[in-house]
Amino acid sequence: MSILVVGSVAYDGIETPFGKVDRILGGSATFISITASYFTQPMHLVGVVGNDFADEDLQRFNDRNIDLEGLQIDKSGKTFFWQGRYHYDLNNRDTLDTQLNVFERFDPIIPNSYKNPRIVCLGNIAPALQSKVLDQVNDPELVILDTMNFWIEGAREDLMKTLNRVDVLIINDSEARELSGEPNLVRAADAIRKMGPKTLIIKKGEHGALLFTNSSIFSAPAYPMVDIFDPTGAGDTFLGGFAGWLGRSGDFSDDNFRRAVIYGSAMASFCVEKFGPNRLFDLTPTEIADRYTEFRALSAIPLQSENSF
Amino acid sequence: MSILVVGSVAYDGIETPFGKVDRILGGSATFISITASYFTQPMHLVGVVGNDFADEDLQRFNDRNIDLEGLQIDKSGKTFFWQGRYHYDLNNRDTLDTQLNVFERFDPIIPNSYKNPRIVCLGNIAPALQSKVLDQVNDPELVILDTMNFWIEGAREDLMKTLNRVDVLIINDSEARELSGEPNLVRAADAIRKMGPKTLIIKKGEHGALLFTNSSIFSAPAYPMVDIFDPTGAGDTFLGGFAGWLGRSGDFSDDNFRRAVIYGSAMASFCVEKFGPNRLFDLTPTEIADRYTEFRALSAIPLQSENSF
Repeated sequence: MSILVVGSVAYDGIETPFGKVDRILGGSATFISITASYFTQPMHLVGVVGNDFADEDLQRFNDRNIDLEGLQIDKSGKTFFWQGRYHYDLNNRDTLDTQLNVFERFDPIIPNSYKNPRIVCLGNIAPALQSKVLDQVNDPELVILDTMNFWIEGAREDLMKTLNRVDVLIINDSEARELSGEPNLVRAADAIRKMGPKTLIIKKGEHGALLFTNSSIFSAPAYPMVDIFDPTGAGDTFLGGFAGWLGRSGDFSDDNFRRAVIYGSAMASFCVEKFGPNRLFDLTPTEIADRYTEFRALSAIPLQSENSF
Repeated sequence: MSILVVGSVAYDGIETPFGKVDRILGGSATFISITASYFTQPMHLVGVVGNDFADEDLQRFNDRNIDLEGLQIDKSGKTFFWQGRYHYDLNNRDTLDTQLNVFERFDPIIPNSYKNPRIVCLGNIAPALQSKVLDQVNDPELVILDTMNFWIEGAREDLMKTLNRVDVLIINDSEARELSGEPNLVRAADAIRKMGPKTLIIKKGEHGALLFTNSSIFSAPAYPMVDIFDPTGAGDTFLGGFAGWLGRSGDFSDDNFRRAVIYGSAMASFCVEKFGPNRLFDLTPTEIADRYTEFRALSAIPLQSENSF
């Protein structure tokens, strides 16, 4: 099932308590498309890079069979660069440098060959640009959107318009509280689902994720990590695994959304094992299947026994 | 299966964003024994109350078939009194008043008829007193202990001695980090299990709980609550449900510990629906069974489907 991925393609400089890398491939569209490429094809990417983008990084996308027709190469400037440092607990980070470069003028143009995607993944970019993507595609079956506090605070009106056109919203708990104005997550979810997205995923970091659909609430566990090496891109990787599984299975039932949340969680648990997207280039199908099984075992509640009420 | 419960019996003054009560039955031994009484009998309570303890509160224990032979009535003073106010998010509270009263001189004496308990529940009291309880009983099959930051900081040496005699420790995430000196909960659990308790439960409030045993890690979901009326006693109620189920089933396997965590969570989710222990006096077996089923549904991950890896 074809997936269209729109978002940033970037270089990141990352410092964690465990190491440092000056410049590594990053960006939401990168993590989403690389991850989803394990699940389904074709994978269509739309983004922009600058004159400094390395051939070997283009090759990394090619190696994963990601269609780059929609990747604009803007020779007038450099690629979006972000530099950050994670604190000891890895839940907080300081942004040390942000150079938007060619991303500042990013205008997503959807090539003709991309115009009939079954699933659209809108990575975290300005809500007005996310709407512009939707204007250019023909009746996708499922639109999945990521956003962040920056847009909730600074572009709420645009965001509300976009949300109304979206099937699945994936945000974290603080974003859900801010977007809804509700501290209680169950109430927050009710309020957000009235804004448009009938399916809502609230990510809670080390505490797993909640999936809200018409029929139920699903509480997904987090994988108990001893060593989180680098959290960069974990949220985008979650989206990639979620969308990838839905594209692979073609099943948009509530039960299958639960599976998709677990595949997203499984892929995110791989992502954090190495710097940037590095772990996402050498995965095997068996590793992915095994991690899915581990998640099931982690949260399996036995049936009641003979002494039950 | 007989259960011995040792802890505080108190009066609480509670203010939440939803209401206020000047004086209501409380204390760890109260919540634990009342909750466990739904699961198994006999239930033996050891604690102390003062000259102000009301007959109707004694009757509430009697109505739940809780044996009060070990409840000391110290006429020389008043019952332990705690007063607190919860913040809007209910995760934090201010203690407004603490009057230890007769609890300050509490010396747990185990009546002869209590000396062969199958399960011992040591509520949150001084670790030296918890050890003193263990000195007086004959080979219980399972010892379950609760503690708190106050003892981790102020009575670490005593606590370490007690921990070495315990099978199951139930604490929250910040206490686990403080006790072990490890920010990562998986590492913290490893360190704590080396201190004695082979089974460790780390409660994470609105994020559920983690169960660490020799064979596995279990991630238990939290019940998505729209209305938490009063969190007082929820942790003790968890312990009561956990111990109660183990006493009812007589099965100390890792799989059954998982069930016990869910029964504990289910009972805690009832506790918070009304002030103090009030909700714990009018439960039905069907309500308990239904909530167990709801927890299973909440975290059920479907098997992989035909499109799986």
